Parts: sequence; C-alpha cells; structure tokens
Amino acid sequence: MTKKPLILITNDDGINAPGLRKLISLVKNLGEVIVIGSEYAMSGMAHAVTIQNPLRVRVVTEEPDYKEFLTTGTPADNIKLGKHRLSERLPDLILSGINHGSNAAINIIYSGTMGAVLEGTIDGIPSIGFSLDDFSHDADFSHVDEYILAIIKKVLNDGLPKEICLNVNFPKISNKPIKGIKVCRQADARWVEEFEERKDPHGRSYFWLAGRYENGDKRNDTDEKALADNYVSVVPSHTDFTAHNYVDKLNFSL
Amino acid sequence: MTKKPLILITNDDGINAPGLRKLISLVKNLGEVIVIGSEYAMSGMAHAVTIQNPLRVRVVTEEPDYKEFLTTGTPADNIKLGKHRLSERLPDLILSGINHGSNAAINIIYSGTMGAVLEGTIDGIPSIGFSLDDFSHDADFSHVDEYILAIIKKVLNDGLPKEICLNVNFPKISNKPIKGIKVCRQADARWVEEFEERKDPHGRSYFWLAGRYENGDKRNDTDEKALADNYVSVVPSHTDFTAHNYVDKLNFSL
Repeated sequence: MTKKPLILITNDDGINAPGLRKLISLVKNLGEVIVIGSEYAMSGMAHAVTIQNPLRVRVVTEEPDYKEFLTTGTPADNIKLGKHRLSERLPDLILSGINHGSNAAINIIYSGTMGAVLEGTIDGIPSIGFSLDDFSHDADFSHVDEYILAIIKKVLNDGLPKEICLNVNFPKISNKPIKGIKVCRQADARWVEEFEERKDPHGRSYFWLAGRYENGDKRNDTDEKALADNYVSVVPSHTDFTAHNYVDKLNFSL
Repeated sequence: MTKKPLILITNDDGINAPGLRKLISLVKNLGEVIVIGSEYAMSGMAHAVTIQNPLRVRVVTEEPDYKEFLTTGTPADNIKLGKHRLSERLPDLILSGINHGSNAAINIIYSGTMGAVLEGTIDGIPSIGFSLDDFSHDADFSHVDEYILAIIKKVLNDGLPKEICLNVNFPKISNKPIKGIKVCRQADARWVEEFEERKDPHGRSYFWLAGRYENGDKRNDTDEKALADNYVSVVPSHTDFTAHNYVDKLNFSL
C-alpha cells in the first residue's frame, strides 16, 4: 500500500482566514494534512524567521490524518517547524494561502505567504503559494477550486524541478469566466510609498505605511497582464537572487 | 556647485553595532549622510514591512550633513521612511551593514540587512549591502576599509544598472591578506534546521531555531567559494524571483 502524501499548509492571514479554510477543504482528502498557523498577523512578514526568541507550539486539532498547530512564529518558521519537528517525515507538498490579496509582481518580496513557499523550496520540497487579488476578509473564493485542484494534482504526480516553487495568483471574481492558466514572469511593478502622519492623543507623531501600486511593465508575458486578462497566473520562482546577466559585466578590481 | 550625494544607511544589528559604526565612519565625509536604525533587533527579518502597526521615529543626532534616526520599523521600513519621508530628496546611494555575519548564499533571503538593500533597488537607487563572515559583536572589521571605499566610490561615480543591487561579503579577518574582489553568483547552500526543545519553569515546551550550514555547491564561481579563497565576494542581486528557465517548460493547462 502506498503511503498517503503528506501535505503541509500555512498562510499569513491567521488560522481562521477564509482563504486558508478554503485551501484546507480542497486538499483534506488528498493526503495526510498538517496545518501550521501563526498566532499573530503575519502579512508583510516576508521571509522573516524568529532567531531572537524561542517559539511556542500549540496543538489545536488532532484527527486521523489531520492536524492543526498554532505557533508564535512567522510563516517561514511554520514551514521550518513543519519540515523538521512537527511531522515525522519530510512533507511531499507544501502549500501556502489562499492569501487574501495578490502576491503577483513585487508583492512576492513582502509576502509571508510566499516566504513560506520559498522556505519549502530550500529543502527541495514541491511548494505552491496561492493568492487571490482581493484583500477583503470576505473575499469570494468560489472560482478557484478546479484550478487549485488541477495544479496540486499535477504537482503531486509529476513533482517540480528541485529549485523552483510556484507563485499562483487568481483574479478577483467577476462575471467573466476565468480563461485558463498562464505560466508567466513576475511583472516589474512596485508600490509607490507614502507615509501618512498622524498625532496620538499626546501630540506625538506616528506614521502609517500607505501608498499606491504602479505597474509600468507593459510586456505581455507578466503575471499582472495574465491577471488583468482574467487568467490564473503561475510564476515559477526560486531563491536565487543573482542577476546572472551582470555577473560578467561588473568589475570592481582595485 | 554640485550638491553632495545623499547617502542613506541602515542595518539590522542595532544602531550601536560596531559594523554600522564602521560603515558610518568610512562614508561620513563622502556626502550628506542619513542613518536610520531600528530600535529593536532585526536580524532574520528579511524583507518584512510593518503594515499592522504605525511606525514611530525619533531623532537621535542632528548635525550639518549628518542625521541619525531611530525607528520602530524593520530595515526595509527604514529605507521606505528614508526614501519617502525622512529626506527631502531621493537618496543617491543606499548602504546597509556592515552586518555581523555572512549574507552570502541563501542567507540573503533571511537577512534584514539585504532586505533594506533590495528595497532600495525597487526605486532604482544604487544600493549596497556589506556583511562580514563573523557573527560576534566584537568582530574585527579592520581589513574592509579600502574595499568598501573602492566599491562605494565606483558606484557613486558610475551608478549601477537600475534593476540590480550589490551583496558584498567579506571573509573573517585572518593572517592571510585579502586577495581582491570577485564578482560571483549566489551559492546554492542552505541551513539544515534543528529545533532545540527546552522546558520553561512551568514544564511547558519551547523551541529554539538552530541548525548547521551546509554548502553542497562545488562550482567555482560562487560567493561561498570566493570567501573560502579569501576574496571579497560581490553578487549582483535583484528582486525578480522568476526562474526564467522554467517559464516555457511548465504547462498547467486544464
């Protein structure tokens, strides 16, 4: 008898986020599932790991082939704990999300959801992040099922190249049908920051990070273009930050 | 009269870290300098940004052409604040470090120091991270001066391609002289985690993230190889996570 695949799941919106619950409901029957959530809000935590403090872990649910843990760590911590402590073997698949909010383009660099996914890749485990281009808590996830299941089943069957993970983004639901899945590049879009200054009751300033999103990347093969055209975008992503085109072009000899 | 270049500096080891003080002492006369430090320890904070809470900013030092601020933010927040709030114009150069500890290979993904540098790149500002392969607080930085100054002066003169920043690492000091500067690739090395379980005085478990560093990348053109050979390593790095080799190879059609 073949062992059921072990699937590790985390997210950065909290363990009760509807996006996470949706993802769990889709994969619960595909294997042995371990969910590791963070006690605190972890949006914007990127690939942060907890090295100054120890971590606490609490068992929330324990059923046959299904466990939920809650930790004081970040999403990347959760994956480290899951890989090396909370499961008896290395997972066959790591999933993160479904994030409330797009992680297309530059958002991958700030995303706790994608930090967890990239952490999975470091040990060569097939890892996929799912995000919806809708920040709201009561976002509608009803159009994602068949695409998530198709992607997960293909990855469970075929695996992924050792060095890559998938950054999957869904357009916000609309009355237009999803056109399909597009494998594409990360768009060169960015946030243009503004800090909003306010005064506390004692007259002291504090600053809220705000800003607007700007996509100046007009190429046709980007994740932002795919989403705008109502496709599910899939960007094969990796942990190599090297700008390989420049290695032979730079010279800093003294 | 040409305006002095505006240089923004941050780090992730705290505003009193000897590595930061060393970097400040090297560049203080090269331009107008603004230092933005974090009040709390930010090692391992990666590209985390503060979106759940507002930020506080405190002026620590204010001299002609030299200012120091202390914030409640992460290194990436500090750069956002510096770019868009605490200076009157966009900086000409962003520096981060000198980090106590290497940021070669996979360490870039966990590094608050390099998170700040990558954040600088997002606005197309030439940005450089400096790190020393020595974690200790009283690390010896006396072999770095000429290399840091050479790299900074070249970047101030020539700029950097808009999309790239530099991840510069120094070998720990030894009785062998530094051989020079090598422009190279990020090695495919990683941490093999182990969590150390302890019991608190109430008998409850807590876990310390620990582990050992493993470099299985035997190629000759990596940052780890350059450091092992006593070179200063420079990796041109960018914020594009796309694994471009796979964009045309993957297929998730339904």
